Amino acid sequence: MKENTQGRPVVPAAPSRGRLRPLGLDEVRITGGFWARRRHVNTTATLDHCHQWMERVGWIGNFRAAVEGRIQQDHRGREFADSDVYKLMEAMAWDGSPALDALSATIAPAQEPDGYLNTAYGRPGQQPRYSDLAWGHELYCYGHLIQAGVAQLRTRGGGELAEIARRAADHVCATFKPGGIEGVCGHPVIETALVELARATGEQRYLDQAALFVDRRGQGTLEDGEFGRVYYQDDVPVREATVLRGHAVRALYLAAGAVDVAMETDDDPLLAAVVRQWETAVARRTYLTGGMGSHHRDESFGDDFVLPPDRAYSETCAGVASVLLSWRLLLATGEPRFADLAERTLYNVVATSPAEDGRSFFYANTLHRRRRGTVPAPDVQIPRAESSLRAPWFAVSCCPTNVARTLAQLPAHLATKDDHGIQLHQYADALITTGGVALRVRTDYPSDGRVTVRIDRSPEHPWTLSLRVPAWTEGAPAWLVDPDGERCAVAPGTAQLTRAFRPGDEIHLDLPLAPRWTRPDPRIDAVRGTVAVERGPLVYCAESVDLPGGRDVDAVRVDPGAEPEDGPDGTVVVPGALTAVEQETGWPYGAARQLGAEPRDIALVPYRTWANRGPSTMRVWIPTTE
Amino acid sequence: MKENTQGRPVVPAAPSRGRLRPLGLDEVRITGGFWARRRHVNTTATLDHCHQWMERVGWIGNFRAAVEGRIQQDHRGREFADSDVYKLMEAMAWDGSPALDALSATIAPAQEPDGYLNTAYGRPGQQPRYSDLAWGHELYCYGHLIQAGVAQLRTRGGGELAEIARRAADHVCATFKPGGIEGVCGHPVIETALVELARATGEQRYLDQAALFVDRRGQGTLEDGEFGRVYYQDDVPVREATVLRGHAVRALYLAAGAVDVAMETDDDPLLAAVVRQWETAVARRTYLTGGMGSHHRDESFGDDFVLPPDRAYSETCAGVASVLLSWRLLLATGEPRFADLAERTLYNVVATSPAEDGRSFFYANTLHRRRRGTVPAPDVQIPRAESSLRAPWFAVSCCPTNVARTLAQLPAHLATKDDHGIQLHQYADALITTGGVALRVRTDYPSDGRVTVRIDRSPEHPWTLSLRVPAWTEGAPAWLVDPDGERCAVAPGTAQLTRAFRPGDEIHLDLPLAPRWTRPDPRIDAVRGTVAVERGPLVYCAESVDLPGGRDVDAVRVDPGAEPEDGPDGTVVVPGALTAVEQETGWPYGAARQLGAEPRDIALVPYRTWANRGPSTMRVWIPTTE
Repeated sequence: MKENTQGRPVVPAAPSRGRLRPLGLDEVRITGGFWARRRHVNTTATLDHCHQWMERVGWIGNFRAAVEGRIQQDHRGREFADSDVYKLMEAMAWDGSPALDALSATIAPAQEPDGYLNTAYGRPGQQPRYSDLAWGHELYCYGHLIQAGVAQLRTRGGGELAEIARRAADHVCATFKPGGIEGVCGHPVIETALVELARATGEQRYLDQAALFVDRRGQGTLEDGEFGRVYYQDDVPVREATVLRGHAVRALYLAAGAVDVAMETDDDPLLAAVVRQWETAVARRTYLTGGMGSHHRDESFGDDFVLPPDRAYSETCAGVASVLLSWRLLLATGEPRFADLAERTLYNVVATSPAEDGRSFFYANTLHRRRRGTVPAPDVQIPRAESSLRAPWFAVSCCPTNVARTLAQLPAHLATKDDHGIQLHQYADALITTGGVALRVRTDYPSDGRVTVRIDRSPEHPWTLSLRVPAWTEGAPAWLVDPDGERCAVAPGTAQLTRAFRPGDEIHLDLPLAPRWTRPDPRIDAVRGTVAVERGPLVYCAESVDLPGGRDVDAVRVDPGAEPEDGPDGTVVVPGALTAVEQETGWPYGAARQLGAEPRDIALVPYRTWANRGPSTMRVWIPTTE
Repeated sequence: MKENTQGRPVVPAAPSRGRLRPLGLDEVRITGGFWARRRHVNTTATLDHCHQWMERVGWIGNFRAAVEGRIQQDHRGREFADSDVYKLMEAMAWDGSPALDALSATIAPAQEPDGYLNTAYGRPGQQPRYSDLAWGHELYCYGHLIQAGVAQLRTRGGGELAEIARRAADHVCATFKPGGIEGVCGHPVIETALVELARATGEQRYLDQAALFVDRRGQGTLEDGEFGRVYYQDDVPVREATVLRGHAVRALYLAAGAVDVAMETDDDPLLAAVVRQWETAVARRTYLTGGMGSHHRDESFGDDFVLPPDRAYSETCAGVASVLLSWRLLLATGEPRFADLAERTLYNVVATSPAEDGRSFFYANTLHRRRRGTVPAPDVQIPRAESSLRAPWFAVSCCPTNVARTLAQLPAHLATKDDHGIQLHQYADALITTGGVALRVRTDYPSDGRVTVRIDRSPEHPWTLSLRVPAWTEGAPAWLVDPDGERCAVAPGTAQLTRAFRPGDEIHLDLPLAPRWTRPDPRIDAVRGTVAVERGPLVYCAESVDLPGGRDVDAVRVDPGAEPEDGPDGTVVVPGALTAVEQETGWPYGAARQLGAEPRDIALVPYRTWANRGPSTMRVWIPTTE
């Protein structure tokens, strides 16, 4: 550790070095627009929804049962159920929820004198502690506990939760130190949590333990199970790997932890290894939505260019993990490509999962749904990830609390600073106050392309305001308008304005929001012969509720020779056709067949709104009439 | 039961009614050619291979451990490990293997006095009997035990194995009768086994119990687990279902059992329901190879037209189950479409699984492999189904023994009889002797298209010889040459010749074996813009070992505007191109991109031979140069 970082701003990640420095929740406030609405729902509905459900299904009760000596018979949920309580607590901490203290008081007495805390292991009649590192998730649960504790440290300077987390972290260091259990957890997340705790407390030993966990992985220390060691990234050491692989959430959390370790230990080769893995995963293993992980079976990345839209797993948690990784890489490098991916993933994965009311969720985020689903009962825990509509809760319910903690910390992802000035990465109505600068951002983005930054306070010396120009503006210029009204075209990347700003100065960024056709790389076999439509950062889709006479989206064809146009209410209209209703054929292979089709305009809606109008079929990639 | 069928020929399925009557292993002998070679390897290598492996991994030892009172600590393998011992025993019975009796003697003492027999349940320290019908596989294990017992009854008239099976069946009837446990097993197969036992013994109660199991399913009696009730076909009653769905092997075994029940109970609506399910599954949910089941995650059928080649599960056991179902439907209806699918599946799934030496196997049969795999160690049990090359054994090793029992009974699938004569369904060098007729079939099929049937013995009155004309001859005529040398074109379906044959008469069927392009239904999204090549019943594929300079098959493009031609050594050569080696792009979506390509002839090999030459990449559906 270079410095004791206690007293840093209220940030979800606080690297002690890097190209950019984060701004805290006390420095950035989202004041209106899309994300303000989503965050309002998160605060007023989702936190309570998750809390109630975890009481109902007994995951919070597990802590009481442990204290009362009846956990052997009364344990509920999977072996990692504790982690969802902790993720909710992290969300509550960032959100300033008054319910946090009562939850802390519930879990505190379940912690054993040596710091061990897990309701699924170690008590009479349970499996012994650390008897199944590959699948037991004990260190994974600590990871989320510690992240929640760090959130309390950063938002309130400390408290019972932070103390529980420190005791747990001390226990982890004592148990997994060199000469102790020299293993790793099947599910990473402890790595980034320990680094954050080191940053928040200045304690070197947490960082050392995190670095150990990163270095130990990839040595084949975990069992070669049904999904192979690649499943938990134990196939290749982190610094040797060339691409993200295996279980997507695990891969992304591990990569984030490796970035954290690399930043604190000046380990540039380790950082470069993660950047390389990110690059390849983004170029070859990422859905148009930013979603990652194409396999349902093992929730893992597919091989290069294996991106089937109809079996897209694209787990919500992988979207969250990808945003957290990209955020760390953005801070480390300052490169806008990381904010580009975060934007795409936030709008099309993270924002797709929760319903408008914040009380039901997608776990998987398919890009093509072929059958209309059934409406999940409001009071039933869905036993599987593949709900046909957003569901209130799942037997494995990692996603709702993960969305909650992401939305709760979202303002910190909007902007950063460095020695030269302020950088805006994501656009929303916001107030930004840091050092001697106060900015007011006004925009209806992503509905509208104009972003206005008004200077409310500024030092008298010149400084640089940087604005990300999204990569998706390639092909249609964006414009920057300076306080004097001078207008200049800006290329994808970063637009900068350096001057002695004065209060009242306004800068405009005009982003071209006309809908556009997007074609897939010809190597993605699963979407050959199809196109998609995007508008700004939003991916669009066809949905059966917009088709006549009960037709399903598989009848839709579109004509990319014509231009897509804005339709009413945020829709996009494209020229296309509906294929004729098909007669059954006995065998679907043989001589060439054409489907008859009738020309028709097709209305598309933002992907994140799909299934808002009840059961439907849906597709993002649409066959062409070509 | 209409009649006591004891004393029927040595057949794997003996319905008491139906359009066609099976011929037994004592009536049909395969004397040469492709299947004779495969059966020779099965007899001389695979049976022993499976036997040795099951000793080595302890699945046979489980029976000894049960007898010796140490099964609680010594049980090996999964909860259904017993079933693989039984499938091997069934194969041994059909094959006439002398090793059968010793195995029977090993399992016999493990049977409890009331007929219960399962090494994974019911003893001290184990889960109680029938405590987990959904996942426990106890009735599934009985199903394979009983099928093995029936094989011994039919081949030898009885024996210890047959007695064990009868005691187990009596126990099942006593336990699962009305008023007993009114449930079903999560994995069907007991249904068809009990009907076969009823046929072989004339005991009505076995049939009644099978009919009960068929009727009980689809009432939601099993738990709604991770994969939903559709996984084990407990979502919809068999007679109401319109398509095969859920876990493919389960769906196909259940359908076969329902056909068996329907035939013995004159339940034509039930038969019609299964025919309808088969039709829809074949038209919408079947791979070009005949493979069924496109999901890895739950080994299940996908939705209609969800047939991704690169994530094709197409489990070998589903191929076996499909052949057994089609065989029953062929006997019931006489329609050649069932033999068409069986032929396709036998050559492209069942024959693809085992290596040439019969000592390693594919579990899943993908139609597209993107990465060269590693060679599995010869002495290691592969923990998962997705071996990159054929593997000697798996942690779940259902496929090797299933292939073994299928090859062992294969001669019975070649021909049938009815009141009018003999029907040939599959073509191989064979001697067929039944009633007053003796036929000698000579052919190099599927390498060569000429099938010659020589009459060795015939009654003096006229009778009808029927020959299946495969559906794949559509578009290129087949020819029938009668004993007088008269040649006439025959359409796909059945060619018939009715006359008073004389010994020495020869009939020729000439099937057009030129390689042909095959295009997919435009509704199969995953293979849009690609074509495949077939030759006779064989599906072909491109394999990287035939490409220059370490290129992978994803670089291959073919030109379906030109004709495919026969190449050397059973290959097919098609005009095409190899795309240029691609530079990495940062993001694989955006404006249209063309891959550069260099014209080149592409050699294709029969799909079933893929990976015979070491690790390779492979694809069946190839993008066009169009």
